[in-house]
Amino acid sequence: MTTTDPLVSDYIAMWNETDRQRRRELVARTVTEDANYLDPLMAGDGIDGISEMIADAQLQFPGHRFALRSGPDAHHDRVRFSWSLAAAGGEPVAIGVDFATIADDGRMRTITGFLEPAA
Amino acid sequence: MTTTDPLVSDYIAMWNETDRQRRRELVARTVTEDANYLDPLMAGDGIDGISEMIADAQLQFPGHRFALRSGPDAHHDRVRFSWSLAAAGGEPVAIGVDFATIADDGRMRTITGFLEPAA
Repeated sequence: MTTTDPLVSDYIAMWNETDRQRRRELVARTVTEDANYLDPLMAGDGIDGISEMIADAQLQFPGHRFALRSGPDAHHDRVRFSWSLAAAGGEPVAIGVDFATIADDGRMRTITGFLEPAA
Repeated sequence: MTTTDPLVSDYIAMWNETDRQRRRELVARTVTEDANYLDPLMAGDGIDGISEMIADAQLQFPGHRFALRSGPDAHHDRVRFSWSLAAAGGEPVAIGVDFATIADDGRMRTITGFLEPAA
């Protein structure tokens, strides 16, 4: 398979995009129409569901941004990467790992997030 | 969901079981009939396919055993854990993370393995 770097870059960008229209465009480029996201705290289905879920997350952490921490590490149609969430210049308030399956069209179809224990 | 500790314990045990019949019993207790396993090097489908895949892996690493390294960490129907593979008393020759989805009957349905970079 081709590199998943652009896909995961768009994925991080969609979590950080606060403009509703631009976020939906990023989400639509990154996940399939039948995609589902699930982590210990949040769930979202489809492009609109995932875009709205991200809006809710942004409300809980205003001014915070996600950053890629390690990876992506991919094989076949699977990818994993870790990320951090922090306010500008601050220490991470959360660190996690996302695991995704990739559809034939190159977008993510199932995404599972796990949170690392607080340091 | 209930704890995934026994499930993951059986999972590690099935990788270590060299007796064909006992291994198949452990595999059947741990994964569904329609399960699939995929890591960068190996793939197996169903109870017999996964049991035979494990036999092949054991031939490549005679005398080595898998051990749980961290986890399991589970939420909803998803679980992750890390493992190591080592000869008795030796340093690990491989370390990896497995991610699985869990069927309604409590067995693993999809299992994806990732390998950590060599230290």
